[in-house]
Amino acid sequence: MGPHPAVASVRLAVRRALADLPPGARVLVACSGGADSTALAAATAFEAARADWSAGAVTVDHGLQAGSAERAAEVEAFLLDLGLSPVETATVRVEGGGGPEAAARRARYTALDAVADRHGAAAVLLGHTLDDQAETVLLGLARGSGTRSLAGMSPGGTAAGRYRRPLLGLTRATTEAACTAEGLRFWSDPHNLDPAYTRSRVRHHVLPVLERELGPGVTAALARTGDLLRDDADALDEWAGEAYAKCRTPWPADGPAHDEGAVVLGVEALAALPAAIRRRVLRRAALAAGSPGTDLTAGHLAALDALVTDWHGQAWVEVPGDVRVTRRDGEIRLRRER
Amino acid sequence: MGPHPAVASVRLAVRRALADLPPGARVLVACSGGADSTALAAATAFEAARADWSAGAVTVDHGLQAGSAERAAEVEAFLLDLGLSPVETATVRVEGGGGPEAAARRARYTALDAVADRHGAAAVLLGHTLDDQAETVLLGLARGSGTRSLAGMSPGGTAAGRYRRPLLGLTRATTEAACTAEGLRFWSDPHNLDPAYTRSRVRHHVLPVLERELGPGVTAALARTGDLLRDDADALDEWAGEAYAKCRTPWPADGPAHDEGAVVLGVEALAALPAAIRRRVLRRAALAAGSPGTDLTAGHLAALDALVTDWHGQAWVEVPGDVRVTRRDGEIRLRRER
Repeated sequence: MGPHPAVASVRLAVRRALADLPPGARVLVACSGGADSTALAAATAFEAARADWSAGAVTVDHGLQAGSAERAAEVEAFLLDLGLSPVETATVRVEGGGGPEAAARRARYTALDAVADRHGAAAVLLGHTLDDQAETVLLGLARGSGTRSLAGMSPGGTAAGRYRRPLLGLTRATTEAACTAEGLRFWSDPHNLDPAYTRSRVRHHVLPVLERELGPGVTAALARTGDLLRDDADALDEWAGEAYAKCRTPWPADGPAHDEGAVVLGVEALAALPAAIRRRVLRRAALAAGSPGTDLTAGHLAALDALVTDWHGQAWVEVPGDVRVTRRDGEIRLRRER
Repeated sequence: MGPHPAVASVRLAVRRALADLPPGARVLVACSGGADSTALAAATAFEAARADWSAGAVTVDHGLQAGSAERAAEVEAFLLDLGLSPVETATVRVEGGGGPEAAARRARYTALDAVADRHGAAAVLLGHTLDDQAETVLLGLARGSGTRSLAGMSPGGTAAGRYRRPLLGLTRATTEAACTAEGLRFWSDPHNLDPAYTRSRVRHHVLPVLERELGPGVTAALARTGDLLRDDADALDEWAGEAYAKCRTPWPADGPAHDEGAVVLGVEALAALPAAIRRRVLRRAALAAGSPGTDLTAGHLAALDALVTDWHGQAWVEVPGDVRVTRRDGEIRLRRER
């Protein structure tokens, strides 16, 4: 008798995601003790034995909840039981701006990077599922900042760095079924139920309503949207990179001294671009001139775009980072004011 | 004393949307009697008198509800009261496939086109608001078919044909406030409250939940997403059009006779494209080979893509419309089977 279908699905997903790894390659699973990463750890242990990879695991103690150290110790013991080695707990400090979820994510990846470097890991496996992908797309939608913010998480792979997400095509229900079928206990992170966390609200209040009102295929549709839009964003960035190089005007030897350090773009070349590309070129130029990308809104870019497409003698446009943008003699100049 | 702020907003939106029209130009407002198009009709009558446009109106009787003819007569009388001329009722038959909303939309645009042609209208104004735009984006999201299906409605304008949507930047609350301030009665379409209609469910059950759980800016964020993604989709289509022309292999004079009518693409040229562009090129090729676009899913395109990027001797791929796709001698051939 073969394994339970859910167990077989998780194993197949791991096998496919790591098909390019040679025997002896070191793989690390990031495991929180939740259903997704527990099923992932078990499947990775199974597949590693067949493919002769050296599979270890890391659990991250964020130190955000009472008893988190005990919890990490339990997860560590479970991972050792699976035959994974080495198994480590990375204790991190969650701090800095951007909200609690962003701070925890930053701390987590920094810790995972350090462990992966120390062990020379070829791949670090993350347990994100189709449901996580759908939530990510919805959260990006709520920000309203376009294709890149709607793009889902990458499955990873050879060209994309060491992080891989083998379970992006599977639902959370499948990972839970796999754990149950194998008698693996998993943990429900109380943060996942805490409505103070936006992602938790999306998971428990928004997606169920979407599924009820628009049909049970919505989660999969959102995940698919994230995949398609990630490819779109990559293609548009590629085009914008080439267009930026072509639009940049070389600094003239006889130019005025105070324009040193300015980014200069030709209006005619900009005007010939489709709006979506022109906006991305202007964004690159603003970043190159010293504007912080995080503060640059669609509104700022629209004002820059108006210098090209709706020119009626505007004095200048100011974007974050004290970057002043002017149009003169068929050129757009972006320069940081001291 | 100036007009109520909501009235001023609607008038300004109309003035801006029609700024390119010369005196004497014929404008038609499509008015259902709802708040959006009622406010639009009133503002258009006001601005037309100032700018010397000849402004008329059309109301469409879909014949879907008891008393719809009386309703249309009331709207017609109201439009005449505003000083609009000519004012017409277009009675249509809603029929054909694709769901009741799609059938009604088809019948409506056919009727509006006929009236606009007959009167030589330079512009036909539609009352869609920011809320409609957000609903459109959410409905596209539920389909999960990528950038184009997420792209919002176009505001229109000179290059984009005769339909214009001056109110896309204003909320439904603003049009209702404008009607109330001017003492204009408006009608609430019972279909807009009917949960059998998907758009109605989005409006009354989904968007309020999103606003509550993710913040009151969600509607505006969705509308902004629609605008950005429309531009993205246009740029990607432009690139794909050029790439398709470059990937097509000219039909060789000595080719086998049964390949007549086939669309042939070079594998090497396809493989060099970013995934998002390659998928669009393959879609164009499938349509050119006779596959109906409506039935072509992301799954079909992924199977075609695998012939290029994951080639391991697949026999062929079949896409809707009996189009068989094979790879041979460094070429992808798409051919309709009889």
